[in-house]
Amino acid sequence: MSIPNKAIVAYGPYRTGQWKLRDVVPRSLEEKELLVEIVASGICHSDLHFGDAESGFGVHYPRVMGHEGVGYVRQLGPNTSVAQIGDPVILTFSACHSCEPCEAGHSAHCRQFASLNFGVSGATYNFGDSDQQQKIYGSFFGQSSFSSLTVVRESSVVNVSRMLGQNKDELALMAPLGCGVQTGTGAIIHAANAGPKDRVVIIGLGGVGLSAVMGAKIAGCAQIIGIDRYESRLDLARELGATDVINTASMSSMGQMSDMVLANTNNLGANITLDATGVQELIQESIKMTAFKGKILQVGAAPMDANLKIPIFEFMSDGKQYMGVVEGDVDPRRYIPKMIEWVRDGRLPLQKIVRFYDAEDYETAINDMKSGKVIKPIIRW
Amino acid sequence: MSIPNKAIVAYGPYRTGQWKLRDVVPRSLEEKELLVEIVASGICHSDLHFGDAESGFGVHYPRVMGHEGVGYVRQLGPNTSVAQIGDPVILTFSACHSCEPCEAGHSAHCRQFASLNFGVSGATYNFGDSDQQQKIYGSFFGQSSFSSLTVVRESSVVNVSRMLGQNKDELALMAPLGCGVQTGTGAIIHAANAGPKDRVVIIGLGGVGLSAVMGAKIAGCAQIIGIDRYESRLDLARELGATDVINTASMSSMGQMSDMVLANTNNLGANITLDATGVQELIQESIKMTAFKGKILQVGAAPMDANLKIPIFEFMSDGKQYMGVVEGDVDPRRYIPKMIEWVRDGRLPLQKIVRFYDAEDYETAINDMKSGKVIKPIIRW
Repeated sequence: MSIPNKAIVAYGPYRTGQWKLRDVVPRSLEEKELLVEIVASGICHSDLHFGDAESGFGVHYPRVMGHEGVGYVRQLGPNTSVAQIGDPVILTFSACHSCEPCEAGHSAHCRQFASLNFGVSGATYNFGDSDQQQKIYGSFFGQSSFSSLTVVRESSVVNVSRMLGQNKDELALMAPLGCGVQTGTGAIIHAANAGPKDRVVIIGLGGVGLSAVMGAKIAGCAQIIGIDRYESRLDLARELGATDVINTASMSSMGQMSDMVLANTNNLGANITLDATGVQELIQESIKMTAFKGKILQVGAAPMDANLKIPIFEFMSDGKQYMGVVEGDVDPRRYIPKMIEWVRDGRLPLQKIVRFYDAEDYETAINDMKSGKVIKPIIRW
Repeated sequence: MSIPNKAIVAYGPYRTGQWKLRDVVPRSLEEKELLVEIVASGICHSDLHFGDAESGFGVHYPRVMGHEGVGYVRQLGPNTSVAQIGDPVILTFSACHSCEPCEAGHSAHCRQFASLNFGVSGATYNFGDSDQQQKIYGSFFGQSSFSSLTVVRESSVVNVSRMLGQNKDELALMAPLGCGVQTGTGAIIHAANAGPKDRVVIIGLGGVGLSAVMGAKIAGCAQIIGIDRYESRLDLARELGATDVINTASMSSMGQMSDMVLANTNNLGANITLDATGVQELIQESIKMTAFKGKILQVGAAPMDANLKIPIFEFMSDGKQYMGVVEGDVDPRRYIPKMIEWVRDGRLPLQKIVRFYDAEDYETAINDMKSGKVIKPIIRW
C-alpha cells in the first residue's frame, strides 16, 4: 500500500516554525489497525503541549500530531473487528483494555495510557516522506489525525455508523467529541455525577472548560460559575449556561478569586470545582472555594513538577475530595453516542465553540486558538 | 435537679496528673437535652488529643471528656423526641442536622462539627463541683461520657431500644460503636464502598485501624494489608482478617513501606489506602502505594500544620482520589444498628479488641492504651 496524502508534520516545536504541510505515505497496516480517511480534526492545547517543546515527556519529532479526528474507514488491518470499510468513525484515546482500570471501565486511566497515547517506537513510524527518505512517527493518541489518511489503532476507534452517515459537515462538527468535549462534559456528568443541587465552579474556559459548562447545564446544576481572564470567553460561558462569571484579569492575588466564589455561594463554596488550567496557583485556590463534602476535579494538565499542598486536618474535617480525571473517565464507546444525541437535540451546542479551517490554514487555526479568538478550531481535509 | 454522681474531670493535661475522679452535679436539662446514666464509655486517643494538651483548638479545662458512651435515659429535657425514660442509648457525635452536608446525609461533615463537638460556651458548663464552687464544661462530642450521669445533646443520641435491653454487659461492649468502630468500618464499607475485588491497605492498627480491618473483612476484600510497628497489633490484625502485615519498626525510611505494599500487590498498589495515624510522613507515602483509580482515605487526625504534597500531573493521570473521612461519613442512626447485628453474628468481633476497667481505674486503662497493651479500653460505672 502506498497512497500519497498530505499531513502536517511537526519536525520540531511549533513556535520555531518547524510544522510543515507535507506529502506523506502511510505505512501498511499491522494487526488491529485501520486506515482512516480523516474528514476533520479538532486542534487542542495538547497538540501544542507535545508539539511545541524542545524535548520532554512525550515529545518526539518528526511526528504527526492531532487527536480529535473523524473520518471514514478505508482499509482494515488483520484481526480488526470494530468497523467495516466505509464506516464513519470518531477517533479517541487508546487504551490496552486488559489492565485493572480498563477492566473496571476506566480506560482513560489505563496503566499503559502514557505509552499508548504519547510514546513512540520503531512500530509507530506510521508515515514516510513522499520520497521515503525519512520516517515520521504517528500514533499520537493512537491516531495522529493531522493527516488526510492515517493509520489508527483499533482501540482509538468509535464506530458511529449507527448514528452518522455520509454527511461530512455533520461528522466534522463531531470531531472534538473524542477528546476535549468528553473531557469537559464527562468530568462533570460522569466523574463528578453532578446534579440539580450542585454549585459548580469551572476554572479556565477553553474547549474543555466550556464543555464542562455545557455538561453542568445538561446536568441541570443549580449554579454554574465560570472563571477566566478573557471577557469573550466569559460571555460565551454565559451563553452556554454559566449563571455567574468571574474575571481574574485585574486581580492582584488569586485569593480574590476564592473570595468571590464564596461571596457568590452564600459562603458555602462549590460542591464541584473543576480545574481546566493546570496552573498550580489556581489549583491551590480550588481547595478554599470548595464546599464541605465538595469534590475538586483535576482535569487540566499541570507541569510535571507542579504540586498541590493539602492541609491534611482541615481537608479531612471538611470531607473534601481531590480527584484526578482524564478524558472525563468515560468509556468513549458508550459516551460518544450520548454526546451525538445531545448535539442533535441542541443540548450540546458545539457550533458555538467551533470554527472550521481548511487544513492548509492550520497555522491560522492554531494562532486563533492561542490568542483566544477561537475556542475550538477544526481543520478539514 | 441535683443528683450527685462521679465524673473524671480534666482540670489540665492528663500527663501532668490533672485528671481527677470527683463528685459532680449535672445541671438542669435545657431544650433538646437528655440526662443519661452512663453504663460504660470507650476511651479513644481523641480524649487525650483534647485532654492532654496545654492549649490549642478544642482544648478547654476543666472539662469532662469521653465520647464513646452507652447508657440509659433517666430524664428528658424540653422538646426531646429521640428516646423515652429507660431507653438504652448509644452516644455518638453531635451535628446540627440543618446545614447542607447534614441535609445531604453527611452529618459527620456538618459545618458546625467543630463547635458542636469540641467547642465550649457558657451553655456547656454542664457540671458543677459537689460543693458548687466551680463550673465544669461538658458536651464533649455532645456527651462527656466520663461521668456516671451526664447531660447529652439530643443529636448525639442513638436510641437502640429496639435492639438492646437491660443487659448491661452487652450494652457496655457496644460502647465504641459510636466513634472508633464506626470510624474504621464506616470508612471502608461506606465511604470507600469497598468490595470483593479490592486490595486494602490500612496504616496504623489502633482501634480505628483494626476496625477498618474488620470492615474490610466484612466487605469481603480480596487483600487486607495491615501496617504497624507493634508485632502484637499485627498479630491481632491477622486474627481479625488481615491477609498480609507489614512491620515498619525496623525500616530506615518510610519508602520501604510503599515498596513492600507494591511487592505484595503485583506492583499494582492498593485500591483503597486508609491512613489511621495522622502522621504526615506516612500519609505522604500513601500516594505511592495506591493503585490507578485508587482511593486514599484520610481518617487519622493530623497536626494542624501538617500538609500533603500531591504531584498534580501524575495524580491526575493515575486517576487517584484523596478524600477526607470523619466518623466513616456514616449516619449513626442507620449505621449503628447494622454494627450491632454484626457484633451479634460474630462478624464484628469487638471482644477481641476491648478490655473492661472499673471507672476508678481509668488511669490504668489510659496507660494500657498508650502503651499498646490494650487496643480499646472501656471504663464501666
